[in-house]
Amino acid sequence: MGLKTKDEYIESLRQMKPSVYMFGEKIENVVDNPRLRAGIEATAATYELAQMPEYRDLLVTKSPLINELVNRFTLPPGSIQDLVARVKINRTLGNWVGTCHQRCTGLDCLAALSIVTFDIDRKYNTKYYARFIEFLKYIQKNDLTANAGVTDVKGDRSLSPKDQPDPDVYLHVVEKREDGIVVRGAKAHQTGSISSHEIIVLPTRALQKGEEDFALAFAVPTDAPGLIHIVGRSSLDTRELDGCDCGNSRYSKYCPTVIFDNVFVPWDRVFMCGEVEFAQEMVARFSAFHRQSHGGCKSGKIDCMTGAALTMMDYNGTAKAGHLKQKVIDMIHRAETLYGCSLAASYEGHKEPSGTYFIDPVLANASKIHEGREMAEATRLMIDISGGFVADLPSDRDLENENIGPLIKKYLKGASDIPTEKRIKMYRLVEKMAMESADTISDIHGGGSPEAHRITIFRESNTDAKKKAAKRLAGIED
Amino acid sequence: MGLKTKDEYIESLRQMKPSVYMFGEKIENVVDNPRLRAGIEATAATYELAQMPEYRDLLVTKSPLINELVNRFTLPPGSIQDLVARVKINRTLGNWVGTCHQRCTGLDCLAALSIVTFDIDRKYNTKYYARFIEFLKYIQKNDLTANAGVTDVKGDRSLSPKDQPDPDVYLHVVEKREDGIVVRGAKAHQTGSISSHEIIVLPTRALQKGEEDFALAFAVPTDAPGLIHIVGRSSLDTRELDGCDCGNSRYSKYCPTVIFDNVFVPWDRVFMCGEVEFAQEMVARFSAFHRQSHGGCKSGKIDCMTGAALTMMDYNGTAKAGHLKQKVIDMIHRAETLYGCSLAASYEGHKEPSGTYFIDPVLANASKIHEGREMAEATRLMIDISGGFVADLPSDRDLENENIGPLIKKYLKGASDIPTEKRIKMYRLVEKMAMESADTISDIHGGGSPEAHRITIFRESNTDAKKKAAKRLAGIED
Amino acid sequence: MGLKTKDEYIESLRQMKPSVYMFGEKIENVVDNPRLRAGIEATAATYELAQMPEYRDLLVTKSPLINELVNRFTLPPGSIQDLVARVKINRTLGNWVGTCHQRCTGLDCLAALSIVTFDIDRKYNTKYYARFIEFLKYIQKNDLTANAGVTDVKGDRSLSPKDQPDPDVYLHVVEKREDGIVVRGAKAHQTGSISSHEIIVLPTRALQKGEEDFALAFAVPTDAPGLIHIVGRSSLDTRELDGCDCGNSRYSKYCPTVIFDNVFVPWDRVFMCGEVEFAQEMVARFSAFHRQSHGGCKSGKIDCMTGAALTMMDYNGTAKAGHLKQKVIDMIHRAETLYGCSLAASYEGHKEPSGTYFIDPVLANASKIHEGREMAEATRLMIDISGGFVADLPSDRDLENENIGPLIKKYLKGASDIPTEKRIKMYRLVEKMAMESADTISDIHGGGSPEAHRITIFRESNTDAKKKAAKRLAGIED
Amino acid sequence: MGLKTKDEYIESLRQMKPSVYMFGEKIENVVDNPRLRAGIEATAATYELAQMPEYRDLLVTKSPLINELVNRFTLPPGSIQDLVARVKINRTLGNWVGTCHQRCTGLDCLAALSIVTFDIDRKYNTKYYARFIEFLKYIQKNDLTANAGVTDVKGDRSLSPKDQPDPDVYLHVVEKREDGIVVRGAKAHQTGSISSHEIIVLPTRALQKGEEDFALAFAVPTDAPGLIHIVGRSSLDTRELDGCDCGNSRYSKYCPTVIFDNVFVPWDRVFMCGEVEFAQEMVARFSAFHRQSHGGCKSGKIDCMTGAALTMMDYNGTAKAGHLKQKVIDMIHRAETLYGCSLAASYEGHKEPSGTYFIDPVLANASKIHEGREMAEATRLMIDISGGFVADLPSDRDLENENIGPLIKKYLKGASDIPTEKRIKMYRLVEKMAMESADTISDIHGGGSPEAHRITIFRESNTDAKKKAAKRLAGIED
Repeated sequence: MGLKTKDEYIESLRQMKPSVYMFGEKIENVVDNPRLRAGIEATAATYELAQMPEYRDLLVTKSPLINELVNRFTLPPGSIQDLVARVKINRTLGNWVGTCHQRCTGLDCLAALSIVTFDIDRKYNTKYYARFIEFLKYIQKNDLTANAGVTDVKGDRSLSPKDQPDPDVYLHVVEKREDGIVVRGAKAHQTGSISSHEIIVLPTRALQKGEEDFALAFAVPTDAPGLIHIVGRSSLDTRELDGCDCGNSRYSKYCPTVIFDNVFVPWDRVFMCGEVEFAQEMVARFSAFHRQSHGGCKSGKIDCMTGAALTMMDYNGTAKAGHLKQKVIDMIHRAETLYGCSLAASYEGHKEPSGTYFIDPVLANASKIHEGREMAEATRLMIDISGGFVADLPSDRDLENENIGPLIKKYLKGASDIPTEKRIKMYRLVEKMAMESADTISDIHGGGSPEAHRITIFRESNTDAKKKAAKRLAGIED
Repeated sequence: MGLKTKDEYIESLRQMKPSVYMFGEKIENVVDNPRLRAGIEATAATYELAQMPEYRDLLVTKSPLINELVNRFTLPPGSIQDLVARVKINRTLGNWVGTCHQRCTGLDCLAALSIVTFDIDRKYNTKYYARFIEFLKYIQKNDLTANAGVTDVKGDRSLSPKDQPDPDVYLHVVEKREDGIVVRGAKAHQTGSISSHEIIVLPTRALQKGEEDFALAFAVPTDAPGLIHIVGRSSLDTRELDGCDCGNSRYSKYCPTVIFDNVFVPWDRVFMCGEVEFAQEMVARFSAFHRQSHGGCKSGKIDCMTGAALTMMDYNGTAKAGHLKQKVIDMIHRAETLYGCSLAASYEGHKEPSGTYFIDPVLANASKIHEGREMAEATRLMIDISGGFVADLPSDRDLENENIGPLIKKYLKGASDIPTEKRIKMYRLVEKMAMESADTISDIHGGGSPEAHRITIFRESNTDAKKKAAKRLAGIED
Repeated sequence: MGLKTKDEYIESLRQMKPSVYMFGEKIENVVDNPRLRAGIEATAATYELAQMPEYRDLLVTKSPLINELVNRFTLPPGSIQDLVARVKINRTLGNWVGTCHQRCTGLDCLAALSIVTFDIDRKYNTKYYARFIEFLKYIQKNDLTANAGVTDVKGDRSLSPKDQPDPDVYLHVVEKREDGIVVRGAKAHQTGSISSHEIIVLPTRALQKGEEDFALAFAVPTDAPGLIHIVGRSSLDTRELDGCDCGNSRYSKYCPTVIFDNVFVPWDRVFMCGEVEFAQEMVARFSAFHRQSHGGCKSGKIDCMTGAALTMMDYNGTAKAGHLKQKVIDMIHRAETLYGCSLAASYEGHKEPSGTYFIDPVLANASKIHEGREMAEATRLMIDISGGFVADLPSDRDLENENIGPLIKKYLKGASDIPTEKRIKMYRLVEKMAMESADTISDIHGGGSPEAHRITIFRESNTDAKKKAAKRLAGIED
Repeated sequence: MGLKTKDEYIESLRQMKPSVYMFGEKIENVVDNPRLRAGIEATAATYELAQMPEYRDLLVTKSPLINELVNRFTLPPGSIQDLVARVKINRTLGNWVGTCHQRCTGLDCLAALSIVTFDIDRKYNTKYYARFIEFLKYIQKNDLTANAGVTDVKGDRSLSPKDQPDPDVYLHVVEKREDGIVVRGAKAHQTGSISSHEIIVLPTRALQKGEEDFALAFAVPTDAPGLIHIVGRSSLDTRELDGCDCGNSRYSKYCPTVIFDNVFVPWDRVFMCGEVEFAQEMVARFSAFHRQSHGGCKSGKIDCMTGAALTMMDYNGTAKAGHLKQKVIDMIHRAETLYGCSLAASYEGHKEPSGTYFIDPVLANASKIHEGREMAEATRLMIDISGGFVADLPSDRDLENENIGPLIKKYLKGASDIPTEKRIKMYRLVEKMAMESADTISDIHGGGSPEAHRITIFRESNTDAKKKAAKRLAGIED
């Protein structure tokens, strides 16, 4: 036990037997499927960096719970320093993998549960917190990756869970047994679900009386019976299957829909069951943490995009173009905005009754609102700087063709001291970072829809204090 | 002869034998290759609509040159009405195909040549205009599609054509013979090159003394010996090859790199050869026309994206969400901005010495500057409105799978009166319009880079008049 | 009768005896009050240019109604050409005065009345149109300026007119007599009300049954008994009163609140009275016309702002700074966007049953939405380019002080070939164009609030056609 | 000695006899001039809050230098906590005064000097640091306000200081004497110069060899012989002189141009004299600190603007309008962005050799870049929400007029439970915050021009690391 190496992590996944479908077929060997492996490699980077001397101090710390060194992705924040580390780790990893590393959602669930299970127990004298702590020890001791099962498929969005024609569109309890519960439903956009050992399920929205069956939090192994992972289409998915023109030579992302087809959960893994009034708190805590995680990893991705743009300028012979440099500055500014607001959210955090530290939700959501707009703008700028070949670069297979390969090398040459192959590789990376749907669409919809981020900063702001200040200056006594 | 039907058009392409490579292999049957056919179908729509009663008046008119009905895509504008028709046809077609129809570039070349060949002749007493008119008659009588070969691959962008280590990175004459010229070079991003019958080559930039060999305009058939079309990668290209998850059920776009490997051009197809000081005019005319074309087709595409977003709202049960309606308004506003500026550029056009009408270049570029930013924003809004499944929707192959197909139908259901299949189809169209690289990147780089559009409006604006107005009001006598 | 000269116009105002208050005092001599005169001069420019050979053809045309030459500001559009002239005249005048010329609102009322009175008569067999035509003849023959009384003060905005505690917050009939009606209420933001000969009142919003008394359109002279003009504060108003540091050496703007304190209107000046279902059409027609007027004059103002910015670059020695040139391009782009959309709205106009031509409301509102955001941005750019002295430039009175005048001349010198006085004058103009509230706030609220513009383009767009296009491409049969 | 009360502060200013001109006249009694007093009151708030129990802990701390309690505006940051306090104090005060409190620039100078004088001494063995420390003790013990004299008037901006036709456009030494130096030049935009006891002068730009005379840092009392303060025009300045329609019932801002007409500075107040290579460091340190100060105070001002907008919604009866609520959210988001980035810049600070803590300059400039754009946008949103009366509200003098006062009260009534006077007062505050030039233009030009902020984040970013990350992912070995 203890910290896993990258190899141990991959080997541990190989021991699992999840039920996985992709493009109409069942995938028996997940770990060696090149499409899925590229995603697993991204999560594996969280294990790899924890072993590298230059990043070890950033990623590894001692857990007061088990009194051992743990990977920070298994540690609910117990101090301001822990909150700050969240952002810095995510920026480092976002930059390292150039996409989503897929391990943050599990931590965000652990952090939310470490606050809310305690709060529920205080009100209802339940035992959720103790159960959760046992589960957390298990995660820490085995250095496991968890996946957040939050986003229900939702059916008709104008209807509450209890009013849906098919109640299964929100995951819920269908049977309570002595040894546990049986649940049914589906969670969409389960980033890295089969790169994880455990799926942690939380409710996706506030609930009301009459919706007790939907007020659920629990954990199950990724290969629990009845769990089905359906890996959907992403824009560049066949590149990895073909092993050609991948762009990012190491990493990718995938996001299954996960169906809970009557899955059994033993009681010691059930962390909430029926306490409807805490559903709102659970999802709010998770969302705030997760939106902040994005502020870290996406600023790291922009760093990488900025590096790609600057390199393309070198390779194209446009390094001195003033208007392109202005666009690079616009990219940097966006990265620092995401980072600055997320970081401030950590530094301005506070201790919750359970001992876990919580971030400032206004600043965390301020970062996420920028992400929802500005990642698209950073991407547009990167494409603008790089040039039109992002659209239609010939395949590496063309390069290998004896008739046209030499012609491509001749005609795709840019600056004279740069081999054409390097220019092609960098263009391909730009294409990957710009046009890969699984990652880019999380800029918009990850951590809840953009409107949710906006509503949160309004709700969490002290608007009365603002009115009072204005009235005082206007000379209005109220 | 005369107007071709859609079938006749496709049959005419089948008669051609271009040299085409894709993903490392030579493509012998272009027309029936599903990837290429989807692009050809988009161009075919320009033939199809010309036969449909409801669009015939928009697309078909009598050519004063041959005194026959012609498709407007073969007619250089001879009146303000013709200029206006350009924008309306493009909006109609952009909406009809939901992507690029790929026939505008040829018209934009014909329009530029009909102005500049006349101007060159006036100065040098050459015969380019007469040759061009013969070529134009041939195009009109046979209702041919032409492709613009403008964008040289450019090598090191900090160097002029004549200073490049390899002069071939700008297409140029390598031999002048009694019967014609031999040219070498390569043109990138040749949208629909093998959906066309002819390639019309123009210079890509202003040229100076000593660069006479690069000052070239000519036409050759798409299957001329030595011409090689290399179809590059687009983000969703394998979907069409697989015939699954295409999104747009009818149309797509492809953009080869076209290599001119010592191609012979007979003199009667040479429209400029050595007159360096006209290179700037040629590219400026073409670019202004082409940037305006985008204002039409891209507003039509936003119409289609807006329709998709509104339909997703119906299907998701979010039709009444006020914040989504605001985003729809933002989409509509962008479409009308592109359209309004492009249309105004037509109405404010004027007659050139050759008799061709030219648009207002400031207004045309004003439209294109918006496109370069706002298509990305319209796309982002469409994704925001539609929801996260744009990222990772299960494949139609999964739907067909007996184990998981029924589960997908169950869990991807949205509003209760809408079959899941419809919702899936619309999500897939959204994915296509948002994430297909060949089309979306032309929003930014089509018609020259964004900086080129900006420089143009500055150069073409009367800044002295603006200063004079300010000085008068400030009370400054100058 | 016939076209008035500038002097005749001012003399004609001198003959009127409106009841005017400003800063707590009654103003007996309106025309010679320097604050008001600066506004009157702006309207006078519409008379002055009509006499200048270089603008005469733009501003003067023959009215088919009276078969005489008239100023276009008295002519409801009777052709596409007339619609186009609207935009070009406004751009010319906006540039000429560098602020609001204040004569467009009257024309926009005349245009709206010329459509809607006809429509009411067709339904109710009333005589409004004939009355209106007589009034129009009077306006044209005497070359009068009219002012639009549209914006009621509105009271509690969450309540309808009929539900207001004080019904007077929407102007309404309080007595119907044999010879006419008596009205009470107040209209806010009456740009140039005392530069006008007539006030034309229209309803400000859609009305419903039970609100017949509010469904009113009529005209009264500016000095009708009971009419009170209260000239509010603008940010730089005392500059004109002091005759120092005015910035714009010729023109300014003022916007009274006009109170109708039991004003009598004879029946031959009543153009609508009780037809509630036409209130919506009346305000929609007026608003569309007026929002388009802004597209013309505000693009003209940006021209002037751009000229000021470019001149400041000359004067500061920053003419070669690339980043400032980029900002100038951003300013030009904004002007052309307003102009292009407004112009397109004219060219795409159509004939109404009365014979008046109406613009395309979607394109007109598209222009206005840009104005609401982009004028502020153009202003910000002008300030950025010009430098910090926009904030705190010493007064001309300081220049005249013997102790500090020479020091100011010494220390405010910019580029060495430019006298300091010129630089100071241009800075002062920039301050005026940026910081004068009466004009800049009309960018946002003129022609109705920004939200109104947005709702209009949604309502007037064919959303069903857009959905249909998307469904066809998605392969959905509906 | 020790902390001054507000009254003591104002009394201390009354003892000074600065040479002040405004609007062409010499001002003998600065403290009781209502225009200047409004600005002095804003600075006085920094003394007042230091005495208020609820703010005392935020503003007051013990200085290790004099071992006494001091106002934080006299304390160069000696810890991360001190850096954080900078931002929070500024936000609190920006909100409290609704404009600029004018005391931050002095602190930013003290902080810069406490770093750079130490660095100069290390290289040249000079005694600047010791002199500075004595000066700092004097400031702290007497709780003095200092003003930053940084922005030279600059003459022709295309020329270096040494190449200017008149060298006085950059402040410089004209005589070195045994007891001190004599300096000449002028500094523009000296926010609150006569609310200060001391003027601290720093160079405004990087300097090169041959420009030793311009490499100057020193302090002089505000009323030193030869110092002349010329209070320029601001957009609403006569309102305060009239004592009517002020909007902000308590505070305002003014920004003199300060001329140094042969001013003597004793050596013990000279902190840099000739060390050209440190000019760049001096201005960079000051600018980074000052740009961060803005992030605090301007977010506080947006808080106040947001409060005004929300109150206007209450008063207008529009509190439930969804689109207005969206705009409020946009305002809040902007405040939190400025705040978050500035706060992160503090938390990520580090210790300099002198012991002073310095902020992260990239994050500080990231905040300022937002300010330069987003304050204008927040202002636009506030105006949009509030309504058109921001442009042209009748004067309070009109309210007092017996004829029209009652009519104004009647017609300007909004929501029925709100007295008209309150609504008028709040509109007036909105006008002040939106249209007052001295304050709003500092959003753009305060702390250097927007381009300077951009260049800084580029220069301070590690672009090589970004390129390296991209190359690794692209599979490029370099």
